[in-house]
Amino acid sequence: MTSPNTTPRLIKACRKEVLDRPPVWLMRQAGRYMPEYRAVREKLSFLELCKTPDAAVEVTMQPINAFDMDAAIIFSDILIPPEAMGMEVVFGDGGPQFPNPLRSAADVDRLIVPDPVEKTGFVMEIIRRMRQELASHPDKALVGFAGSPWTLATYMIEGGGSKHFAKIKGMMYESPDVLHRLLGKLAETVTLYLNAQIEAGAQAVQLFDTWGGILNEADYRRFILPYHQQIIRNLKRDETPVILYVNNSRGILPLMAEADPDVISIDPLTSISQARQIVGSRFALQGNLDPIALFSSPDVLKPLVQSLIAEGGNQGYIFNLGHGILPPTPVENVRLLVDLVKESALTPAHP
Amino acid sequence: MTSPNTTPRLIKACRKEVLDRPPVWLMRQAGRYMPEYRAVREKLSFLELCKTPDAAVEVTMQPINAFDMDAAIIFSDILIPPEAMGMEVVFGDGGPQFPNPLRSAADVDRLIVPDPVEKTGFVMEIIRRMRQELASHPDKALVGFAGSPWTLATYMIEGGGSKHFAKIKGMMYESPDVLHRLLGKLAETVTLYLNAQIEAGAQAVQLFDTWGGILNEADYRRFILPYHQQIIRNLKRDETPVILYVNNSRGILPLMAEADPDVISIDPLTSISQARQIVGSRFALQGNLDPIALFSSPDVLKPLVQSLIAEGGNQGYIFNLGHGILPPTPVENVRLLVDLVKESALTPAHP
Repeated sequence: MTSPNTTPRLIKACRKEVLDRPPVWLMRQAGRYMPEYRAVREKLSFLELCKTPDAAVEVTMQPINAFDMDAAIIFSDILIPPEAMGMEVVFGDGGPQFPNPLRSAADVDRLIVPDPVEKTGFVMEIIRRMRQELASHPDKALVGFAGSPWTLATYMIEGGGSKHFAKIKGMMYESPDVLHRLLGKLAETVTLYLNAQIEAGAQAVQLFDTWGGILNEADYRRFILPYHQQIIRNLKRDETPVILYVNNSRGILPLMAEADPDVISIDPLTSISQARQIVGSRFALQGNLDPIALFSSPDVLKPLVQSLIAEGGNQGYIFNLGHGILPPTPVENVRLLVDLVKESALTPAHP
Repeated sequence: MTSPNTTPRLIKACRKEVLDRPPVWLMRQAGRYMPEYRAVREKLSFLELCKTPDAAVEVTMQPINAFDMDAAIIFSDILIPPEAMGMEVVFGDGGPQFPNPLRSAADVDRLIVPDPVEKTGFVMEIIRRMRQELASHPDKALVGFAGSPWTLATYMIEGGGSKHFAKIKGMMYESPDVLHRLLGKLAETVTLYLNAQIEAGAQAVQLFDTWGGILNEADYRRFILPYHQQIIRNLKRDETPVILYVNNSRGILPLMAEADPDVISIDPLTSISQARQIVGSRFALQGNLDPIALFSSPDVLKPLVQSLIAEGGNQGYIFNLGHGILPPTPVENVRLLVDLVKESALTPAHP
């Protein structure tokens, strides 16, 4: 889809081309910290917004329009595929909930592997519309995404967020075969879903493993890594880089590398230099400013951002947060951050 | 205090003596999962219980009497010293709260460094009484403890538990000098407090850093490690081993080693074998069964415990959980766990 002259900066960074500055975007950049977003949400619930392409495109574009980010990530939620698999999901003030969480092998067997176009066509519509919106900005990339099987299974079994993850770990200890059946169905669902996003026009895709950091290495090798590998191996990657994010990944970066993504997205606990030492130069890296740093005064924030820009360098690095931006983040600080990355350009862009 | 013939098994393990089986105790072993404990709590609030030596000794002895644990850990709370420093603390159903959390340099300056005997004499009384209780069990050790400066500061600044730790990180980014002043006061307080526990008869002490795993390495080196080092260097350690526990320590075990404790206590994310590879044979290790594994059926629990016993071995290893036991834990599983460790003895104990 992309020719050399119209390759977005983010894609060049994924391919480890030398750039004049890194691309910048922020995980969850279309969200509650923006007054424009909150205005849209006064009219639509979270789930309505996900399923209304007009409005979803509008909020996807908000951080592009406000801060001139180098990438747009489609407005959606990782729990859209589980809903399409047959589970009721409710987005309330306390976070997402599954009123009827998975409890048994029969519950798992009832789930379907949905056709992504038929069941979640609104996501593909958002992507097609976004590519039209970005047609006049060939330097900007459109990023699609999905949650990883482990993270989706966690929500589907716990019924929502969790402190101790007793239910999914209980299934892991007691009925590993049932858990594997669920994870296999999820891997198939996520693969079809991401390939449909690529087909619709996503120029990069990110796999989010929010709860991938709660398992030790032996369990990660059994319940997480094989599904990362299965998904990544089966994506249409010729022109579409894959970014893998695992939260709380300190100590397991080599396992993220074994999944063979193009880009490894780093949480705030490992520095970009440490990560580069650990995974080597085969991967581009993304991250990893602490979202809490964005609550600081500009005088404190500026050197933090500048030292991260210097650490990341101009080859194989994407400036981002270490996890999603938080709702109370001051908008001025987001602008400062993006401006600092852009000002870091020392030489004209490579053609 | 201890002669070779009366050296408790736990202390021998701390000293890396070869044993016929590892000692076993569980973090938070005197707690809500025990019906005997809940019966005492019907008559006394949590804080009253901490401050009533009769009752505290009773609940400290409960897991010794019920399961024949190899060590008793004094019933108390890490927030007792902050209260003695001048802060009001409330233990409610939602966890501990400081109604007036630290907000400013002036708040920090108002805190005193309390004389541990004068202000927290009830803790020393519990220890003296416990040594009398254990006089007829010279094989069992009495363990004292304290929270680390970073973890105590987190509670004192956040006002309670936290999801994003925005307030303490805010102080770290904005006013590192104020945070260092607080951490210095806490290190002094904790040192005096633990030395008073040793003086009163604690045979080992454990430093708990519940929130030590939320910082990256650079920040850990600035705000955590120097205070671990200061405390451990200044403890009366001739006969009293020091155990250091940091939760979410994957990737930072070398920094725990730099604090120079006798024993490194491992959370569930790093295996004991990995930990031994990383920190070498200079340290004894403690841990690290996942507390959630204790919710499993006996058939599932048994091989998990047995493989951990085999992994830990009979030299320089203390069987424990990777963090505190959870209130819904079935009592029968605790008994099974302890019995399995005891049955693992293959040869008569070394004299």
